[in-house]
Amino acid sequence: MVSLLEATTDVATDVLAAVPAAAPRRSPSPALLALLEQKFGERFSRSAAVLLQHGTDESAYPPAPPDAVVFVTGTDEVAFVVQACARERVPVIAFGAGSSVEGHLLAIQGGVCIDFTQMNAVLAIRPEDMTATVQAGVTRSQLNAALADSGFFFSVDPGADATIGGMAATAASGTNTVRYGTMRDNVRSLTVVTAGGEVLRTASDARKSSAGYNLTQLYCGSEGTLGLITEATVRLHPRPEITAAAIVHFPSVRAAVDCVIQAVQAGVSLARAEMLDALTIRAINAHSQLSMAEQPTLCLEFGGGQAQVDEQAEWVREIAAECGGGEFQWATRQEDRSRLWTPRHHAYFAVLQLRAGSRCLTTDACVPISALAECIEETEADIAAHGLLAPVFGHVGDGNFHCLVLVDPDDRAEVEAAEAFSQRLVRRALRHGGTSTGEHGVGLHKIGYLLEEHGEAAVAVMRSIKRALDPLDILNPGKVIAARA
Amino acid sequence: MVSLLEATTDVATDVLAAVPAAAPRRSPSPALLALLEQKFGERFSRSAAVLLQHGTDESAYPPAPPDAVVFVTGTDEVAFVVQACARERVPVIAFGAGSSVEGHLLAIQGGVCIDFTQMNAVLAIRPEDMTATVQAGVTRSQLNAALADSGFFFSVDPGADATIGGMAATAASGTNTVRYGTMRDNVRSLTVVTAGGEVLRTASDARKSSAGYNLTQLYCGSEGTLGLITEATVRLHPRPEITAAAIVHFPSVRAAVDCVIQAVQAGVSLARAEMLDALTIRAINAHSQLSMAEQPTLCLEFGGGQAQVDEQAEWVREIAAECGGGEFQWATRQEDRSRLWTPRHHAYFAVLQLRAGSRCLTTDACVPISALAECIEETEADIAAHGLLAPVFGHVGDGNFHCLVLVDPDDRAEVEAAEAFSQRLVRRALRHGGTSTGEHGVGLHKIGYLLEEHGEAAVAVMRSIKRALDPLDILNPGKVIAARA
Repeated sequence: MVSLLEATTDVATDVLAAVPAAAPRRSPSPALLALLEQKFGERFSRSAAVLLQHGTDESAYPPAPPDAVVFVTGTDEVAFVVQACARERVPVIAFGAGSSVEGHLLAIQGGVCIDFTQMNAVLAIRPEDMTATVQAGVTRSQLNAALADSGFFFSVDPGADATIGGMAATAASGTNTVRYGTMRDNVRSLTVVTAGGEVLRTASDARKSSAGYNLTQLYCGSEGTLGLITEATVRLHPRPEITAAAIVHFPSVRAAVDCVIQAVQAGVSLARAEMLDALTIRAINAHSQLSMAEQPTLCLEFGGGQAQVDEQAEWVREIAAECGGGEFQWATRQEDRSRLWTPRHHAYFAVLQLRAGSRCLTTDACVPISALAECIEETEADIAAHGLLAPVFGHVGDGNFHCLVLVDPDDRAEVEAAEAFSQRLVRRALRHGGTSTGEHGVGLHKIGYLLEEHGEAAVAVMRSIKRALDPLDILNPGKVIAARA
Repeated sequence: MVSLLEATTDVATDVLAAVPAAAPRRSPSPALLALLEQKFGERFSRSAAVLLQHGTDESAYPPAPPDAVVFVTGTDEVAFVVQACARERVPVIAFGAGSSVEGHLLAIQGGVCIDFTQMNAVLAIRPEDMTATVQAGVTRSQLNAALADSGFFFSVDPGADATIGGMAATAASGTNTVRYGTMRDNVRSLTVVTAGGEVLRTASDARKSSAGYNLTQLYCGSEGTLGLITEATVRLHPRPEITAAAIVHFPSVRAAVDCVIQAVQAGVSLARAEMLDALTIRAINAHSQLSMAEQPTLCLEFGGGQAQVDEQAEWVREIAAECGGGEFQWATRQEDRSRLWTPRHHAYFAVLQLRAGSRCLTTDACVPISALAECIEETEADIAAHGLLAPVFGHVGDGNFHCLVLVDPDDRAEVEAAEAFSQRLVRRALRHGGTSTGEHGVGLHKIGYLLEEHGEAAVAVMRSIKRALDPLDILNPGKVIAARA
């Protein structure tokens, strides 16, 4: 996603105003820069282009470049940088694929950006334990390429080809969470550099443990604010013998959601269950010259042995029929599955073409599944009432859905209206017992909702943890939670 | 398990000597006792019998009674007690079913015990979200009784009828972890009273979230040292349409373990996979007048639709045959399954009868599954070399196994030999990349291994967290990690 607000940096809605832009910049001294240059040589950069690239993510925020970038190759180098920066209280920010969407990596207080893209070795694949250990800069597609002949795959797929370290840092998830879980469920242990530049491993190689506090889950989702993830051991899953895909249209969002709820309750192992609303289908029809019914649609995927897939597909067909669903379109061969899923994969680009020259603001509400249909219905009514162009699609099995609000980036009123919609949507999700972010993370954009979502006592605990583990406030400062209230 | 060391309190092997028995007792003042008595009336007790009961768990340690016990009925009462105790720096210790096995609940520094058994209301069952919310004192069998007609069940089964709060506090697991996960995987959110007596909820009702630090997983497994769990929202699972059980004998532990590894790799959804060694089978044969082959044996359980169960059972039959397994004995009807699984359920009592008057020390090693067969073989060689009587059984799919070391509790040499064996076993597990405790927790008994398992940097982080969240060191002090190094 191209930065929405690049051309409109004076936008200041409530949430964007919450960015602690007034925090003083803490730039490295000439001596520190010289030390880093000496250590990293050509892997140290202060070129304007490199700084800009490393101060830009996929969020709506304007770029905020760091003072320097180092390209690390190992955990020891990360520890070196952190130790050096700690001496001057200079911020340290991790950078992987740069695909975060909430401002996570912006160097709003300056500092040194640690680029992990050269830490991209797959260190071990252990078929018997069904785990792999990778350096943090390995992307999910790199890992899956390394697993191609193993019979296993790494399941988490947030759309972008993000790095494993970045996905762990934001607790990412995606389309097949309904069966295989989020990044939290798939990280077994992490190697972490602390704010003091010490190296630790969060857990042993055992599948489970009750030995002390769960550091793996503390660092997972901490967005680089408690430590820097340098290596990760992740779970692998066996590739199903058979995979089958289906799409089916429904008369309403509620009917589509009910179908998924009932299927999951019946014990169906849905590998994916994506809902696209009528507007998304219209966009896809236009984009791919298709003529699908412009109705709420489920894209489903099943996996297992032939008998299991047949049995579960039949259950879902019956359930869908009871929910008013139309005819199933099936595919089991890889190329047919790809064809069936193409609409979902192309949804983002198709949607952008609904309006020439537009940019989109992406939302990330997640609610209990029992409230999902109502929350989407209310959201579609909000979209209609405010005259927005905003297709809706989501990971129905998780209660997580996204709206892509299309705006003219040069029209300040439109951009503000989109942000106001995003705020109403977050508050609606919270009213329904949900969360401000299902999978994108807090970054800068959701900080303003942390207190509303968690309450004072919980936020106070989070702040205590931040202060305890990063007393100098050098780890991605100003993200997730302010070190001082 | 009856306390092993009740009659031998002078035992002092390395690990038991690590108990901070020298920590000063911090007893409540008469004014505090009067305040609690006034608040709780008949739900306040200082009777010797009640204190002794609440200072006794299923570990090998001698009892360590608190100074007073209060029986709470709600989160607000827990907060009241914590606030009152905080004013005098008096320890607060949670008590559920009293079934912990590593000394978790012993009041080694005195203080007030909070008994949760009257906080036993099932607050909500949400079929669409597949969750239930319970007060912390609800036991797993109480919850499953409440779910009887719902089509769902709560999966975690550590053997004892523990409370949900206690199971969350120790990150418990059990026989069906291979399919349904540990307590960590099944806790969605917790209500917690902090050391300052504030009440917080760790997460929303959404299935997933990336909004801030993962407090759910921080409190889960913290054994009452970071906060007191008063309510829990847990995942429910649909009852499978069909459940089938099987037992099959193998020529070696390695063959049995290999069978489970290959089945899991093939994508079989084993609901349970328990291994019993030859000595355990001998004990069961004697106890139940059976004549099973005295060989390593797998007890397996499958669940799903009929076609899925048939298909997967056939896969496992083929895999078992390749691994040298014998004939499968099958059962699908509930009463036949119960009969087949009876050996596993009676293993503990059967084992105790191998030697009249004996007590047993239970171990809890967990290693990567790739190392499981070797670790068990080394352990059985150790048992033989030291002339111990110690059957071995385990949750093979998790890499977690237990030895029940039978000793005469009045024979100090035997008790010391058992403890020395336990130490060797922990260190063997660590050498194999495993953990000192797969599911029982640290309590007092595993504190001495925390540094060996996690290293200095990780233990320093854990200690920082303990100090940040419990600055007065009043929450179950002296357990998991000492507040001061």
